Amino acid sequence: MPIRLAPEFQYIHQYFKRLAGAGALDLADDAALLSIDPNYELVITADAMIEGVHFFPNDPTDLIARKLLRCNLSDLAGMGADPVGYLLTVSLPATCFNASWFEKFTDGLLQDQRFYNFSLLGGDTTKNPSHMVFSVTMTGKVIKNMALRRNNAKAGDGIWVTGTIGDSALGLLALQNKIVDKSGFLTRRYHLPQPRLGLNLNNIASAGMDISDGFIQDLGHLTRESHVGAVIYTHRIPLSNAAKALGPSYLETCLTGGDDYELLLTISPEREHAALMNSKKANITLTKIGYCTDQNQSIAFYDEQNNLVSFNKTGWSHI
Amino acid sequence: MPIRLAPEFQYIHQYFKRLAGAGALDLADDAALLSIDPNYELVITADAMIEGVHFFPNDPTDLIARKLLRCNLSDLAGMGADPVGYLLTVSLPATCFNASWFEKFTDGLLQDQRFYNFSLLGGDTTKNPSHMVFSVTMTGKVIKNMALRRNNAKAGDGIWVTGTIGDSALGLLALQNKIVDKSGFLTRRYHLPQPRLGLNLNNIASAGMDISDGFIQDLGHLTRESHVGAVIYTHRIPLSNAAKALGPSYLETCLTGGDDYELLLTISPEREHAALMNSKKANITLTKIGYCTDQNQSIAFYDEQNNLVSFNKTGWSHI
Repeated sequence: MPIRLAPEFQYIHQYFKRLAGAGALDLADDAALLSIDPNYELVITADAMIEGVHFFPNDPTDLIARKLLRCNLSDLAGMGADPVGYLLTVSLPATCFNASWFEKFTDGLLQDQRFYNFSLLGGDTTKNPSHMVFSVTMTGKVIKNMALRRNNAKAGDGIWVTGTIGDSALGLLALQNKIVDKSGFLTRRYHLPQPRLGLNLNNIASAGMDISDGFIQDLGHLTRESHVGAVIYTHRIPLSNAAKALGPSYLETCLTGGDDYELLLTISPEREHAALMNSKKANITLTKIGYCTDQNQSIAFYDEQNNLVSFNKTGWSHI
Repeated sequence: MPIRLAPEFQYIHQYFKRLAGAGALDLADDAALLSIDPNYELVITADAMIEGVHFFPNDPTDLIARKLLRCNLSDLAGMGADPVGYLLTVSLPATCFNASWFEKFTDGLLQDQRFYNFSLLGGDTTKNPSHMVFSVTMTGKVIKNMALRRNNAKAGDGIWVTGTIGDSALGLLALQNKIVDKSGFLTRRYHLPQPRLGLNLNNIASAGMDISDGFIQDLGHLTRESHVGAVIYTHRIPLSNAAKALGPSYLETCLTGGDDYELLLTISPEREHAALMNSKKANITLTKIGYCTDQNQSIAFYDEQNNLVSFNKTGWSHI
């Protein structure tokens, strides 16, 4: 669908046109066209981001744009897919309708399009009576029958995560002036997630998903879909130096806050070596933090002294 | 992507789950999977609908849902494609979070999914601080290289439209109490567009698109993309009896108001017969209202007495 604009807003078109790629038909037709190699499946996911819920009006405009893409790229990474292109609906208050806003916003989109190698397929721009609302539909591709799913973890598989957990939740606290983030590392992690594309574990992991609603809640999703339980060693959960520096009282925030965009994976013991080789190749840290049990949906956390740990909150929700 | 909900809103899940079809993976994974027959291309389009801009909070909830789908289906129809599935992001004020609202909304979606034969692939539900915002990404399929485009109309081709033009714009006036719509026909046309799927003109029309921003503005898009001009006979433009009854002073509203969701097609003279045969088969009226000229982007309107007609407004815009 073309991005439809009143004559006085035609200037906006140039900003979106430079984002359009193959299949977008120059954003001039009713829809985009995609051909998929018959050896691949199309992977498709949609996410909305609302001002005041998922981001704040004072966040830098280019980072709002890049986070919007990266949250959706993370969903592709969760299924082991590579990005193809995206559709974007942008709904803005009147104050955003100026060349400067659109330039910053589309500069951010373009930067990450180039970095991750995909392009704009289409979209829609509308005025919104009050605040910014964005919706991205991201498409990707994965070799047929090779998508990582949530429902195939087996008892005995190791439980692994990429990167470090909880930085983004702490970054949000820093932006709310509830903690101090001297180096800016945590805030940066909140503003600019790193979707873990290219890890190439489709043949290696038994199950996978991205962590976006808080580690504990997402682990709950995976164990429920796979009909397994989990034992997690809290001291093995990878935390950044900035998170560690805040002390153990922030562990619960790290494990229940949203917006990690790391991957949660299960890997059978005999595939661990292959997984670690691929993680090295992709330069993405992979840490084993526990294992799956046959205790359907029972999740137990243990600390270094092998004492049970319990948490009050379980996760962050989009509602 | 799964529809993520806090535990107290898990009841919503059941309403969306009954809408999910093949490829949606029960709305349990990070994304949906689609396989496309290698003889087809995937057609993909996105549209946002904002409360107070595209619909009103008092519109019946099931009709809001059905119009949301139908506007996007109309984009598929504009390219001669058939629906496959859709992703939906729903952003709602707190007042809508109750079983009754979700039941009505998803009842509407289900009704049209069944009628047009497609299903939900995924989506996202979030709270919105103030008002309802929906975004639909609709996917369809079309035989490779057979999609109707806007850029292939030739001088000499006839200009055709489906159905009747302007009813929806008049329906909006009726809802605003600016005109009287005794039979409710015009209001119905506003609330529930008829996407012109199944006309099967891919091999017959030279260009096509759906009319959503007002006939004159959309004709402008088609002539610009095709580098042609147009002569239109205003008395040949098909109007409903309800529209005719309002008299000639409403013609401009009919031709510039948005939300028609009829098709605008160009057809070479030697293909007219085939087009009319297919229109009869599909039970969709097709009316010839003018022809394309080689006067690039010049559009001229003539009345029954062959006098030039001019209009003040040119169309409705999403901004």
